[in-house]
Amino acid sequence: MSRWKPDAQGRLMKAAIELFDEQGYEATTVAEIAERAGLTKRTFFRHFSDKREVLFSGSEELQRLWLQGIAAATAGATALEIVADGLDPVAEMFAERHEFARMRAQIIAANPELQERELIKLQNLAGAIRAALVGRGISANAAILAAQSGVTVFHVAFARWVEQDDPMAFRRLIEDALEDLRAVTAA
Amino acid sequence: MSRWKPDAQGRLMKAAIELFDEQGYEATTVAEIAERAGLTKRTFFRHFSDKREVLFSGSEELQRLWLQGIAAATAGATALEIVADGLDPVAEMFAERHEFARMRAQIIAANPELQERELIKLQNLAGAIRAALVGRGISANAAILAAQSGVTVFHVAFARWVEQDDPMAFRRLIEDALEDLRAVTAA
Repeated sequence: MSRWKPDAQGRLMKAAIELFDEQGYEATTVAEIAERAGLTKRTFFRHFSDKREVLFSGSEELQRLWLQGIAAATAGATALEIVADGLDPVAEMFAERHEFARMRAQIIAANPELQERELIKLQNLAGAIRAALVGRGISANAAILAAQSGVTVFHVAFARWVEQDDPMAFRRLIEDALEDLRAVTAA
Repeated sequence: MSRWKPDAQGRLMKAAIELFDEQGYEATTVAEIAERAGLTKRTFFRHFSDKREVLFSGSEELQRLWLQGIAAATAGATALEIVADGLDPVAEMFAERHEFARMRAQIIAANPELQERELIKLQNLAGAIRAALVGRGISANAAILAAQSGVTVFHVAFARWVEQDDPMAFRRLIEDALEDLRAVTAA
């Protein structure tokens, strides 16, 4: 985690993920997270509403970056290509977050409540992408399928990315998953 | 609902969906559902663990039928075609449940907790389909994408089916959604 940002929020995220990893998510308190980060509980609550949000605050940033990328993607491609091209800024962000993402994935996999939360976040993300595609003039039918497929491709690529060692591999894994999707949907 | 099954479970489902529609899901009690069906609370609890399960017991049947259909689907097709062909027995079941499905969709759309439950059921369904595809010799990569895409196609077709008037249209709407998916994923 050598590239970790040294600000208070970054220190709290680093402390939290380490404690979740060492002693479990359920057993970790906000007081322990703040202490490990060398900060107060008051500071913790200025950045996060609760310990769960340490794991999910990145979802908001993911959505913001992905929607920015979709808005900036070249027109003329298919709806799903617009969605995939929109991941360029996300891939940049992820390159600096590989270790956090990997530990986060393990913690979420071990906790059904967190898995449900992740699922709901992904579904909200699909809804936001659908709206962004409609805003770009894509038909409603194409928008919903491209948004859902885009989130599926993201989900598959993300799971592969956290399992391997190269932080820079995310964009290539997206292309691989797109290819796999095309193979299974071919007529 | 002329083709509604006259057994106790069917009567409870009919009574519940009518009451949810008339007075809201939250405001309806198990006692009211049992009374409307002319049955006791004890009988209700022999069929359902709570009022929410009246809306979700069909998910188990959907999964059972879909997996049967996947097991019976012709080999040689692509992974997604196997998943879609597996919907044949589901389409038959749905043809008799159109009015219930339509009312259920409205009730779920009005309640975020029920939407989350629906989402989790669909995700579990995707997991079961993935396992069934792997069991048929499909590669893990293709299985996850075909299962997720199959559930997306199902979800889109289902939403269209409850919005229109022909109970028999489900299978055709699946084919339409598959075509739309192919169009958005094309290279």
